Amino acid sequence: MTDSVTTHALRDDHERQARVKAFMAEASLDAIVAGSPSEVLMLAGYWPIMGGSVAVVTHDGERCILLPEDELSLAEAMTTATLVPYKPAEKDSLTPPMKALAAPLASVLRRFGLGQASVGLAYGRTMQPASYTTQVEFRASLAEAVRQEQPNGRYTDCDGLLSRLQAVKSSREVEQIRRSAEVASDGFAAVAQALEPGLREAEVAARVQAAFSSSPRAEIFERSYGSFFCMSGPNAALAYAAYARTRQRRLEEGDLVMIHANTCGDGAWTDLTRTYTIGPPLPRHQQMRSAIDEARAAALAAIRPGARASEVDHAARTVMERHGLGEAFKHATGHGVGLATANPDALPRIHPHSPDILEPGMTFNIEPAAYFDGYGGMRHCDVVAVTNAGPVVLSPW
Amino acid sequence: MTDSVTTHALRDDHERQARVKAFMAEASLDAIVAGSPSEVLMLAGYWPIMGGSVAVVTHDGERCILLPEDELSLAEAMTTATLVPYKPAEKDSLTPPMKALAAPLASVLRRFGLGQASVGLAYGRTMQPASYTTQVEFRASLAEAVRQEQPNGRYTDCDGLLSRLQAVKSSREVEQIRRSAEVASDGFAAVAQALEPGLREAEVAARVQAAFSSSPRAEIFERSYGSFFCMSGPNAALAYAAYARTRQRRLEEGDLVMIHANTCGDGAWTDLTRTYTIGPPLPRHQQMRSAIDEARAAALAAIRPGARASEVDHAARTVMERHGLGEAFKHATGHGVGLATANPDALPRIHPHSPDILEPGMTFNIEPAAYFDGYGGMRHCDVVAVTNAGPVVLSPW
Repeated sequence: MTDSVTTHALRDDHERQARVKAFMAEASLDAIVAGSPSEVLMLAGYWPIMGGSVAVVTHDGERCILLPEDELSLAEAMTTATLVPYKPAEKDSLTPPMKALAAPLASVLRRFGLGQASVGLAYGRTMQPASYTTQVEFRASLAEAVRQEQPNGRYTDCDGLLSRLQAVKSSREVEQIRRSAEVASDGFAAVAQALEPGLREAEVAARVQAAFSSSPRAEIFERSYGSFFCMSGPNAALAYAAYARTRQRRLEEGDLVMIHANTCGDGAWTDLTRTYTIGPPLPRHQQMRSAIDEARAAALAAIRPGARASEVDHAARTVMERHGLGEAFKHATGHGVGLATANPDALPRIHPHSPDILEPGMTFNIEPAAYFDGYGGMRHCDVVAVTNAGPVVLSPW
Repeated sequence: MTDSVTTHALRDDHERQARVKAFMAEASLDAIVAGSPSEVLMLAGYWPIMGGSVAVVTHDGERCILLPEDELSLAEAMTTATLVPYKPAEKDSLTPPMKALAAPLASVLRRFGLGQASVGLAYGRTMQPASYTTQVEFRASLAEAVRQEQPNGRYTDCDGLLSRLQAVKSSREVEQIRRSAEVASDGFAAVAQALEPGLREAEVAARVQAAFSSSPRAEIFERSYGSFFCMSGPNAALAYAAYARTRQRRLEEGDLVMIHANTCGDGAWTDLTRTYTIGPPLPRHQQMRSAIDEARAAALAAIRPGARASEVDHAARTVMERHGLGEAFKHATGHGVGLATANPDALPRIHPHSPDILEPGMTFNIEPAAYFDGYGGMRHCDVVAVTNAGPVVLSPW
C-alpha cells in the first residue's frame, strides 16, 4: 500500500513495552484504555491519522488498537499490536462513530477479561500534537463507553501516569526523534537562500516549508509533516508566546529573523528554532548571540541523570542575567518534546520552579532566548536527550 | 500587533448571535460553556490558536471568552466578546493550566449568575479542525470544572445542539468561507506548472502548498493556513479514505493526479479537490470526467431549502451508476464544511441514508468521485452554500 522506504523503527519496541508494564504494575493497573494519538503511539506503536483510534493494553503485555478501517494498512506497517478495525463512515450505512466503535471495543474488553479489572482511563486536559488537518477528540465519550460496557470495573484516572510514561523514551524512540530532526534540518538548510530583504514572512516560511516537505530523506517515514514559521523584526519579539505566527511583514536589512519548526516523523516530534540576520549582524545581535550560545552550553553542562530540571533552567538563566538579558529571557528554558511538541506542560519542565528530576531517556528542548518589544528577538532551540553519559543534542547542526 | 490588512469579518455577527440565542431558548438553556476551537469561534467569534480557550454565552446574549493571555491581542482583533485572559504558563510560576483557568472561570460563571442555571456542556466525541500544530483537548476536565464550581447548576449535554448550530452559517460566515476558498484557489492555480513527470508527489504538494501559503490574498485573514495533498496513479485510487496522504511516488505520463486541500482563513475551512492528468487525458479519463461533471451538476440541481440531503446524494449517485461508475463512487456525495473540514459526520450529511434536510445557510462539499484499485482515482470537490435562490458554489473555478 506504500511505496516509501520505511524502517518500522518502533515495531517491537521491547524497551517501551517493558516500561509500560512496569508503570502499570507500580500503579496496580490491569489495563489502560486511551484514545489520544500520542497515547496510542506510546502504548501500542501506531501514530493515528484522524484520531478515533483506541489503544487497550494489559498488565501482561497484550496490545490492541481499535482503529478506523481505512487506516488499517498503515497501522499494519507500523506496529505488531493486534489491530481491530471498525467502520466509522461508509456509504451503505450512517452509523454514529461512537456506536460503530462500541461493539468491537466491548469485544476487546471481554476478550481481555477486564469485567472487574482495575483500568486506567484518561480524563484530564491534554495537549495533543496535530495528527492530521482535523482530529477526533473523544472528550468524555471514550471513558463513558468503557464504563458502560464494564460497569463492574474499577476505574482510575491515569493522566499523571501517562505524562510520566511519555517523558522517558526508549532508545528507539530517541533515535526516531533524532531522525525526525534530521529531516527538519533539510528545511533549515534552505533558510539562507530564502532570506531576501523585501520578501514577506509568509514567502520565506513557504520556501523553507517546501524544502522540508519535499526532502527525499522524508522517505524514512510513512508520514513526515509539520510546520515552519517565520517571524522577523518586531514580530520576532512576540515569539515568546506559546505559539509561533507567520505574518505578512516584509524583511528589512538589519532584521533578526526567527525560523521555528514543529515537525513530525511517524509521531516523533521536534521543536526547533534558529535565528538569522538580514545583512551582517549588528553589535547588539552579536551580544545576544554570545549570551544565548553561552546559556545553551551552560544548560547542556547541567544535564545529567538525577539533576533537577530547575538546575538546568538556573544554569541558562544565570548566564542570560550576567549578560543583562535576564528580563529579556521571558520563558522557561525548555519542556518535554518528542511525543509532544510546543507543549510547555510536557515533562520534564526545564523551569525555575520545576519539581522534575532528569532521567536517562528524557527528551526535551533547550531554548535560551531574548525578546525586546518593538525591536526583535533571538532564540536557539534544540532537542536533547538525557543519557547516562550526559546530554546528546538531537539537532546538532 | 499585526501588520496585515484584516477585515474582522465576523465581528458583531448579529445573525449568528441571534441564531445562538434562538437555539438556546428552544432548548431552555440559560448558558453554554464550550472549549473546542470551532465552538469558541461559532459562539463567541474568536478562532483560538492552541486551544485552551473557553466560551461562555448566555441566553440574553452575553458572550465571554476565557483565553491564554498570549492570545489576547489576536482575539481583540477578531471579536467584540468580553475577553478574560489567564496565564497557563509563565516563568514565575508553574501552575497547572486547569488550575490557572479555574479562578477566572468561576468568576465568569458567578458574574453571569449561573449558580442554579441550566447550562449546556459538550461531552461527546467531536472532530476538530487543527487550530495549530498542537492543540488543547479538555477531555472531561472542562465539564468537571464547571460542575465543581457550580454544583447546584442543571447540566445538559448540548453536543447535538452545537452540531445543528454549526451546520447553518450566517451570511458573514458563508462569505468568510467563500474568501477562504478564494485564497485556496491560489494554490490550485499553481498546480499546472507543478505537474512534471518524474517529480515525487511530495515535491508537487510542496510547490502547490508554497503557492497557497505565500499568496498575497492571505492578507485578508489574521491566520491563513492549511494543507495541500498530492495523490497520483494508484495512490489516487486510495483517496476514498477519510483522509488524504501525500507519498513519495514519482508522477508518470498517463497518471491521474489528485490535488486535495483543507485550508482555513480565521477558522473558515474549505475542503477542495481537483484532478489532473499527466499528458493528454485518455478515453477512460474523459469518461470519468464526464460522469463526474454530470453528477456534480445533478447534485447542484437537487439543492434547495427543504430538500432532503439524501436526494442530493441520490441525484449524483444515479448519474454515476448510469455511467457504470456506481461501484467506483465509494463514499457519500458530501458532508458539512466550514466550521469543520474533512469531517464525514458534520451536518448536513449528503449521504444515501441521511435524515438531514437542507436549510438556507448550510455549507457542505459536493465531491463526486470514481476510484479504481491499482489504477487511479478522480474527484471534483467543491464547497457550496444553500440559499433561498438555490445553491451557490463557493469554489467556482
